This record gives sequence, structure tokens and C-alpha cells, in this order.
Amino acid sequence: MSRRRQIYEGKAKILYEGPEPGTLIQYFKDDATAFNAQKKGTINGKGVINNRISEYVFTRLAHIGIPTHFIKRLNMREQLVRQVEIIPIEVVLRNVAAGSISKRLGIPEGEPLPHTLIEYYYKDDALGDPMVAEEHIACFGWAGNEEMQDISSMAIRINDFLCGMFAAINIRLVDFKLEFGRIWDGDYSRIILADEISPDGCRLWDMTTGEKLDKDRFRRDLGGEEEAYQEVARRLGLLENEGPSEVLDLGAHRKLRGK
Amino acid sequence: MSRRRQIYEGKAKILYEGPEPGTLIQYFKDDATAFNAQKKGTINGKGVINNRISEYVFTRLAHIGIPTHFIKRLNMREQLVRQVEIIPIEVVLRNVAAGSISKRLGIPEGEPLPHTLIEYYYKDDALGDPMVAEEHIACFGWAGNEEMQDISSMAIRINDFLCGMFAAINIRLVDFKLEFGRIWDGDYSRIILADEISPDGCRLWDMTTGEKLDKDRFRRDLGGEEEAYQEVARRLGLLENEGPSEVLDLGAHRKLRGK
Repeated sequence: MSRRRQIYEGKAKILYEGPEPGTLIQYFKDDATAFNAQKKGTINGKGVINNRISEYVFTRLAHIGIPTHFIKRLNMREQLVRQVEIIPIEVVLRNVAAGSISKRLGIPEGEPLPHTLIEYYYKDDALGDPMVAEEHIACFGWAGNEEMQDISSMAIRINDFLCGMFAAINIRLVDFKLEFGRIWDGDYSRIILADEISPDGCRLWDMTTGEKLDKDRFRRDLGGEEEAYQEVARRLGLLENEGPSEVLDLGAHRKLRGK
Repeated sequence: MSRRRQIYEGKAKILYEGPEPGTLIQYFKDDATAFNAQKKGTINGKGVINNRISEYVFTRLAHIGIPTHFIKRLNMREQLVRQVEIIPIEVVLRNVAAGSISKRLGIPEGEPLPHTLIEYYYKDDALGDPMVAEEHIACFGWAGNEEMQDISSMAIRINDFLCGMFAAINIRLVDFKLEFGRIWDGDYSRIILADEISPDGCRLWDMTTGEKLDKDRFRRDLGGEEEAYQEVARRLGLLENEGPSEVLDLGAHRKLRGK
């Protein structure tokens, strides 16, 4: 593994050169950051769970016709993905007010939004990922108009799918973040879903208790982040099906099942 | 005057009940605020000049078919306007990077934007007028889709007109803010331009020297704000044509002409 060429190291993942041209290996770390990396820590086993959850979600999104970069999971912490030109925009879908929108617009956390809201943030750590509008994206050429149409219509479909998926396991999808990339076929390009979908980039609240099952446990020092990530994986049926694994070895599994 | 009913007092203007139903009197104060009223002061004679500049601009915008709330100027500090339901959105048009966009997106001040950019800010002092996108405006019902189409197409026309108007007097229109209002005719409503257009809400740079002729002189403690406002009025031909007036009495006029 040490001979592989590292392409990029982000806050939660490392990208290595893949086995074939146009592929990458996406390695999921346990590193956790919040507030634009002002807060740093580790969530033990997070990388393993996120790799598994993201595989699950991306595979099922492909079934409903969402093109994604996911090719296959390679091992506990790695998946093979298509190499894309990443669109420098974080696409945030919100169903319920929480986090930054509650603060910016004075909407109490937990208040359902009148309808699903799509927001765009410019991916730039030095600037703190500022919110932008489609007008900025067009003005600075971060994505084309047709690309933004593809992105927004895919994002809305993904939200509908995920709302249903999480509702089935008694979880409310409060909000989540997506990233998209551009792939080329000769002179033509198209947009596909990239990055990951996991409790790192989603707000997931238990529908009955309201308990947070996502990275807010880390951001807000609530504790139990490892157990929360595992709980999501467990409800998705991803722990039982796997047999003994690094995830089960964390030892917190039994405790949460008994809750 | 003291018997008139005050409808609203803002940071730079007071609105009084007008002589007829559906009208208001808009009174221009000398009060100046910046950074969401964290900085407060006075620019001597500003209200008189802004009343005059705004009359000039709104009258000419009406000539190119932009509907506005302006009816007529009443005296040095007051104008008669149509009463509107104000749309709680500040519409900002940017031709050159300056101020908040330079800070938020890391674009050097003075860099021309690839093309004119329209931005929306939610009018809420307590929240610090946060930037929003059309998606927020639709989600929270601050304006309808058709209303936003009217607003954006009027805003773009106004920008073109003002760029030409200011270019003719050697001033670069860097950016400016607009506000719109809704008027009702039975069950139907339409959008008209409201508020004011003046150096309070515009960034105006001398094309030759780059000198700032706007409220940034106050915001950034550059001094000479009274003279700057008068210089804009003078170049628009609004001081010579008026004969002796409160504006001319400020005494700074001759000094600036000699520059």
C-alpha cells in the first residue's frame, strides 16, 4: 500500500491512484473535524462504517438511475471509484432547520422547513466554505448552467430517496451534503455523484427520541459518536450481514442494541 | 409637520403618512450607519443630497420604463412616494469586487467580476442581513417566483442604465443596493422599485483617481464624506441647477470644484 501514489488528502479521506486509468482508491480515515477544522479529533471505527454506509447508499442510488463515482468496495476502509473533476461546490439539502441555517436565518433548530431547501457552498477551506448562490457559480464559472440543472435535479431525487430510506429505519433526514464531479467522454462531459454519503455529512435524528446519530455528537461534544455511527449502520442492516469485522470488534454494538 | 403620523423610522429615512391614501412621505436624515448600525454618525447635508440624487435617478428610470414608488420631491429633505409592501430582500448588483464579496470569496477589491453579479440579502437587522439565494426566498415565501423574475430583470436593466449614467460623469459603478415593493390593484399585485438610490447604497469610484465617492468614506474612516456626496451631486448637475440651497450652504462646494 505504501507504494501507491497519494493524489489528495482531505479531512476525512485520502485518495490514491487507482489500478486503472480514470480510477481512484478512496480511503476512509477515522479523523473527524468540525467548524472548518478548528476542532479536530478521531471517531474510532468511523472510516470503516462510512465506507460501508456510503457503499450501501451509492449502490442503491445507482439502482434508481443516479450516476455515481462508486465502482466497488475493496476492503474495510477503501473503495474503488471513478476519477472525476470535482465541482468546487458543496450541495446541501435541508428538510428541517438545524446548524448554520438556524443561526443565519434565526429559525429554531428542529423546525421543519416549508419545503426542501437546496443550498450551495463554495469549497474553500481558507474562506470557510462560504454560502453562494447559483449566480456566483455562473459568474465565476465553477459549474455550467446545464451542469447546475443536472446537479439540482439529482440532488432533489437523492433527497427523496434518502428520506424514504432513513424513514424506514426510524431516522429523520434533517439535512445532508453532496458533492458532484465531472467526467469526460471525448469532448463531452457529464455530472456524477462523488465523495461519500455518511453520518459525517448528514444530520440524522432518531424519529422517536430525537437523538442525534451523526457528526453533531462530535461537533457539540455530546459523546457517543462511535455508537451513533454504528447505530445507523446497524439499522441499515450493515453490521449483522457482515459477520465478525473491525466494526463489531469496537465492542459498543451490543450496548446500543440493548437500548 | 409634527402632527403627521410616523409610519416607520429606518437608519437613514423616516416614513410619514402621506396626504392621500396609498402615499407616504419619505424624509431623508443625515444619520449614517455602517456594519449593521454598529457604527453610527452623521454626514452633514447627506439627506438633502440623497433626496435630490434619488429623485434624479428614479425620474430617469421611469423614463426607461422602470416602475418606481417615486411621485415627486416635496422639499429639501422629503419626497412623496407610493406606499408599498416592501419585499424583505436587499438586491445587490456588483460589477467590480469590493466590500463583503471580496472578504467572503477572497477576490481582491477592485477586480472586475467576470460578469455582473446579482445577490440577495434578507432584510433583518437582528440577523445582520444574511446573504440568501433564490431558493431561500422561495422556501420562506419572501417573494414569489414571478416577482423574483420581475425583480432580477428590472435590477439588470437598472444596472445597465446606472453604469451608463455614472460613466458619463467619470464614475465607475462598483456595486449598489436596490429594494423593491409590492403594490396591489384589486386582487393583482405588481413589483415596483422602492427605497432610494444614492451614495449611501452605491459604491462609486472616480474612474481616473479611483477615489471613493460613497459611504465607504464613512465606513472606513476616510474622511471627506460630505464632499464626496456633494461631488456626485455636482457631477450630475444637481447643484448648479438648483440655485442657492441648503446644499450650497455647506460651504464645501467651492473647495471640491477646485480639485
